[in-house]
Amino acid sequence: MQSTTCRSISVVVATLLAGLCLPAQALAQGDPLPSWNDGAAKLAIVSFVKATTDQSSPTFVPPAARVAAFDQDGTTWVEHPMYTQVVYCLERVAVLAQARPELKHTEPFKTVLSGDRAAIARLTTKDLETILAATLTGMTGGDFKADAGRWLAGAKDPRWNRLYTDLTYEPMLEVMRYLRDNGFKTYIVTGGGQDFVRVFSDTVYGIPREQVVGTMWGTTYGYAKDGKPVLTKEPKLLLNDDNAGKPQGIYLMIGRRPVAAFGNSVGDRQMLEYTGGGDGTRLMMLVLHDDAQREYAYGPAQGLPDTKVGTFTQALYDEAKQKGWTVISMKNDWNRIFSEK
Amino acid sequence: MQSTTCRSISVVVATLLAGLCLPAQALAQGDPLPSWNDGAAKLAIVSFVKATTDQSSPTFVPPAARVAAFDQDGTTWVEHPMYTQVVYCLERVAVLAQARPELKHTEPFKTVLSGDRAAIARLTTKDLETILAATLTGMTGGDFKADAGRWLAGAKDPRWNRLYTDLTYEPMLEVMRYLRDNGFKTYIVTGGGQDFVRVFSDTVYGIPREQVVGTMWGTTYGYAKDGKPVLTKEPKLLLNDDNAGKPQGIYLMIGRRPVAAFGNSVGDRQMLEYTGGGDGTRLMMLVLHDDAQREYAYGPAQGLPDTKVGTFTQALYDEAKQKGWTVISMKNDWNRIFSEK
Repeated sequence: MQSTTCRSISVVVATLLAGLCLPAQALAQGDPLPSWNDGAAKLAIVSFVKATTDQSSPTFVPPAARVAAFDQDGTTWVEHPMYTQVVYCLERVAVLAQARPELKHTEPFKTVLSGDRAAIARLTTKDLETILAATLTGMTGGDFKADAGRWLAGAKDPRWNRLYTDLTYEPMLEVMRYLRDNGFKTYIVTGGGQDFVRVFSDTVYGIPREQVVGTMWGTTYGYAKDGKPVLTKEPKLLLNDDNAGKPQGIYLMIGRRPVAAFGNSVGDRQMLEYTGGGDGTRLMMLVLHDDAQREYAYGPAQGLPDTKVGTFTQALYDEAKQKGWTVISMKNDWNRIFSEK
Repeated sequence: MQSTTCRSISVVVATLLAGLCLPAQALAQGDPLPSWNDGAAKLAIVSFVKATTDQSSPTFVPPAARVAAFDQDGTTWVEHPMYTQVVYCLERVAVLAQARPELKHTEPFKTVLSGDRAAIARLTTKDLETILAATLTGMTGGDFKADAGRWLAGAKDPRWNRLYTDLTYEPMLEVMRYLRDNGFKTYIVTGGGQDFVRVFSDTVYGIPREQVVGTMWGTTYGYAKDGKPVLTKEPKLLLNDDNAGKPQGIYLMIGRRPVAAFGNSVGDRQMLEYTGGGDGTRLMMLVLHDDAQREYAYGPAQGLPDTKVGTFTQALYDEAKQKGWTVISMKNDWNRIFSEK
């Protein structure tokens, strides 16, 4: 009887210990990356985690330095045929024009309001920047968060008829969780608006708002009608978090060089280069969209069509091969693209 | 025998549970704030923590939202007679003048190099900004970190003949630990240079680099002679993290309104106001330096001398009383100022 009680206590306590104390990864005896096919890409991730977290290894990285940076558009969710944030901003133009009717006669807003898809697709980068600045600023931080949150709760991608926030890549969510379970701090480092991604980073990626680095605009401090202090978003660009802006944004917001970085386009080149410039074991990965059937296929690396969104050039592909950055083939490395809900 | 073994196992397991799983605060049955005398200030801190962490309370704050912001100079360490960072910058002028001899004949550098303390004390804010921009930029982030680290490892405050980094206030370090033990994320939010404070925030405050918000300058991305990527600090001010800049910096770097904020001067007014503008239970505290014997006494609140560093005006004092912000009397509320080493 004593013995049985003792065993029972041991079982209860072992369960408590397991449930309360051990990281989830240690519990999951199974594969932490089930959506990845066996191959060089999966092996690179698992080897990197082993090398950096084994305390007896010369390549051990202390927990405080375990920073992993993920680009968003095209790396953790769908970016085609148009960045989700741009879809949001284009739809917001109509709302903006109600308050400022003169926009109906002003380009590039006039084109957007025309609904002429071909003309909208022809808008230049400068036009889009004008639209982004106008639609992402001029309101308080709280109002923006509420509006973007409402939109994201209902807006759907027409190809899959699913919420944009459901179109995240399950294999990348697995990598994020796997890294976090091994003591890494995961960050989104996006060319998109920092405030936009902060609206959903926690629920979609398990990444808290403060770990989102993105394109930043300034704010002004003032008071609402009820006298309460508010911050109003201003069209004053502080940092365009793309290309060389990505290492700059990382330096500003994190103050540490990442040990792992994930991207999919030329806009991520410097972030991967900066990550690789540090000492010790590093992991640099680029997603190649080569799966037209399950998602999209574009490059122009490897002869894929150049669709001007998330450009993956042949030069970037060659640089990756030369520097030991791992190219992830969506078609071959991933057995699943989206998470089921 | 079975019974004894069983008890032994239980003890071992209980120890494991205690050591591995429970927050340090739960273990410390004693006073978490031993350097604080009993009184309104100490009570305000303890009551706030209870109100925000008791899950059954209507004022419960979920862990993700538990953000506490601490000003540095005059709030967590000595700021008199001159901010430590300014001492560093003034000493760096000599190094800078070796590389750029023309500075020997250019104001305000000429005055600094003269060593004339009275003249240096008369330098204007604009002069100091010129000196800060010149001495805190123009090098890589890594070189700056190394240089400031070397300086901080040896430079001493002449009054106490102790390292500047040893002149932190033990009562405030206790508050930081107490908050962290209760699931709060502690941030430094300083008018000082973000990169400067990041050099020592971890070892001195237990606050990781990425949780330091300060005055920010831009960087450029480039390459060292060996081809490695580097970020060079530029004299391009992104944000002056003081006064209204503090809530702006918090919004930019954290993206959440703090629930607790600690300051000591008019430069912290907006941060406390912004913190207090949120719903639910909030804690706003201001350190009043009224202890000339153990530290310094300056105001001009409450008739204390106006020394122009860390100004605590009577208007700020009155606002604090009116809004329910707690004023900490260094003389009466703290039974110890510095930690012994």
